Amino acid sequence: MKNSLFIRACRNEATERTPVWVMRQAGRYLPEYRAVRDKYDFLTMCKTPELSAEVTVQPIDIIGFDAAIIFSDILVVPEAMGLKLHVVESEGPAFDNTVRSDSDIDKLDSAGMRDKLDYVYKAVKLSKILLKDRVPLIGFAGAPWTLASYMVEGKGSKNFERIKSLIYKNPVMAHRLLGKITESVTDYLSGKIEAGCDAVQIFDSWAGILPPHLYKEFSLRYINEIILKIKHYGIPIIVFPRGIRYFEIMKDTSCDVISVDWETDILAVKKIFAGTKVLQGNMDPVILLSNGEKIISEAQSILEKFKNDKGHIFNLGHGILPKTPVENIKLLVNFIKDNSHKYH
Amino acid sequence: MKNSLFIRACRNEATERTPVWVMRQAGRYLPEYRAVRDKYDFLTMCKTPELSAEVTVQPIDIIGFDAAIIFSDILVVPEAMGLKLHVVESEGPAFDNTVRSDSDIDKLDSAGMRDKLDYVYKAVKLSKILLKDRVPLIGFAGAPWTLASYMVEGKGSKNFERIKSLIYKNPVMAHRLLGKITESVTDYLSGKIEAGCDAVQIFDSWAGILPPHLYKEFSLRYINEIILKIKHYGIPIIVFPRGIRYFEIMKDTSCDVISVDWETDILAVKKIFAGTKVLQGNMDPVILLSNGEKIISEAQSILEKFKNDKGHIFNLGHGILPKTPVENIKLLVNFIKDNSHKYH
Repeated sequence: MKNSLFIRACRNEATERTPVWVMRQAGRYLPEYRAVRDKYDFLTMCKTPELSAEVTVQPIDIIGFDAAIIFSDILVVPEAMGLKLHVVESEGPAFDNTVRSDSDIDKLDSAGMRDKLDYVYKAVKLSKILLKDRVPLIGFAGAPWTLASYMVEGKGSKNFERIKSLIYKNPVMAHRLLGKITESVTDYLSGKIEAGCDAVQIFDSWAGILPPHLYKEFSLRYINEIILKIKHYGIPIIVFPRGIRYFEIMKDTSCDVISVDWETDILAVKKIFAGTKVLQGNMDPVILLSNGEKIISEAQSILEKFKNDKGHIFNLGHGILPKTPVENIKLLVNFIKDNSHKYH
Repeated sequence: MKNSLFIRACRNEATERTPVWVMRQAGRYLPEYRAVRDKYDFLTMCKTPELSAEVTVQPIDIIGFDAAIIFSDILVVPEAMGLKLHVVESEGPAFDNTVRSDSDIDKLDSAGMRDKLDYVYKAVKLSKILLKDRVPLIGFAGAPWTLASYMVEGKGSKNFERIKSLIYKNPVMAHRLLGKITESVTDYLSGKIEAGCDAVQIFDSWAGILPPHLYKEFSLRYINEIILKIKHYGIPIIVFPRGIRYFEIMKDTSCDVISVDWETDILAVKKIFAGTKVLQGNMDPVILLSNGEKIISEAQSILEKFKNDKGHIFNLGHGILPKTPVENIKLLVNFIKDNSHKYH
């Protein structure tokens, strides 16, 4: 898979056209996904390699993306560390227990990811068999900061009062928690790569809730620690710092690709990195709820920003919305496949 | 009030110390506010001039801020235009009816703000009497984009799929709605100023959900339209573009003050404007849940950024949290009052 379109684009090599995949492409907008989901709950799907692999491969068969991403959830890591997770898909995931004291941190088990998350590695291996080398498989994990936010808050939050109070009141404790999570994520991602993933993406979904100096201290340093420890595998590493406003601070990160959300002007980000990083994104997922004309004109406007340049992977700026009509995402993917060579 | 500390700071004049007030200062963190709120629901408080004025003045009496802000809600304008509003304080406000078609827009009444919102003007006049010229009174309104988002979605939203689908699918209809709201907001703010407000703040709470080119087209142009029409009153105009990432685009706005949220590096924003705009903010409200030492060190770090410079009004980057201990906000305000002269 080293010579696949997607991997070459990640490596900032010139490609014949722009590769395209979308976040949450194994998801509810697909009737074939919903058919599986009707029979099994979300976590059962994550934990049953056959089901996970089935829905991982669906968007490749049905839509024809240039990369697959393993169907899973970032919160399987905190669960493996000892928290009890439940997922109500309409409400988002939540933990029954939370991490709010030193003794809560003591109780977390940062080792043993390989055993406890063996179901993910099995799903990776099975997906690779089903994909038959058609496209590469992306593995992923949550960034330690994002996982810590969930573990301390117990679920998604509006003001993130608890995790932010922790870093303000007790930064030493916050760093101890983040250090432990970093160990687990590093081990988990290493296992995913060893099981066969061709690239990995680190999702920092709550990057945007920290001002830049705190983002550096409480998130980026841990992302960097993980990257340094998995870099030797030689596969592309993508970071998605959702919501950050100062992309300059990502210059110190040795990832290959930065995923850019839809609120950001990707042309401004391109100027900051001047070819030193590949960029991924950043179409607004809501565009896919509109009509063909609008979808094509937005796709053209993003492609135009990388005209005569390499270094772009087409993607949305956030996960594809469950309401997205399948014909609209098909239209987008076919448009990129058939037309992006004109911009290269 | 033209020579008050706060107004002089808004006008970018040199002041002996930094003025301080906080958003939602008339709010639930105050036991005296909760005592009123226990007896009346939120909207009754907004619509009863005596109650609104009472809670407007409370934080001046109890904490000693350098400006008062009239107790009200940005959604009284859409209500006056014809929507039915209900507010459950813990869940946020919501409308029983929404605006999703051309005929919904036809039905909106953009005139008649002066009659329908007379209760606000009465509250302003009463507050001015109770304030006895101790501090200036700030009036406010929602930006048309933020109000339109609420009117189309019906309430706060996660993905803002409906308002964004409207601008993508039917920009002409979106502009018609925004134009009508702009008329109402302009009339409403003019009435507030005529009733006695000494400054106004335009809250664009959902500024951050648009990328920069769409923010210009669907929000900033309407904010500018309002400013041009109220500028002749000669009072300071503050804009709070919550969540925007590209402050450069605010250079074209003739407001006096820009309020800066806590996710932003206010020093970077200061460099962009180089003294041409006064900045307000940007302490993280969660800091006020920590301890005295942390509160002081954060306050010092913000004051330090404006050392030997005028052009800063101390405030939080978002509304004060209901859980904030009263002694913590008192500590902050007293610290600013007693120490900010050292930075001037």
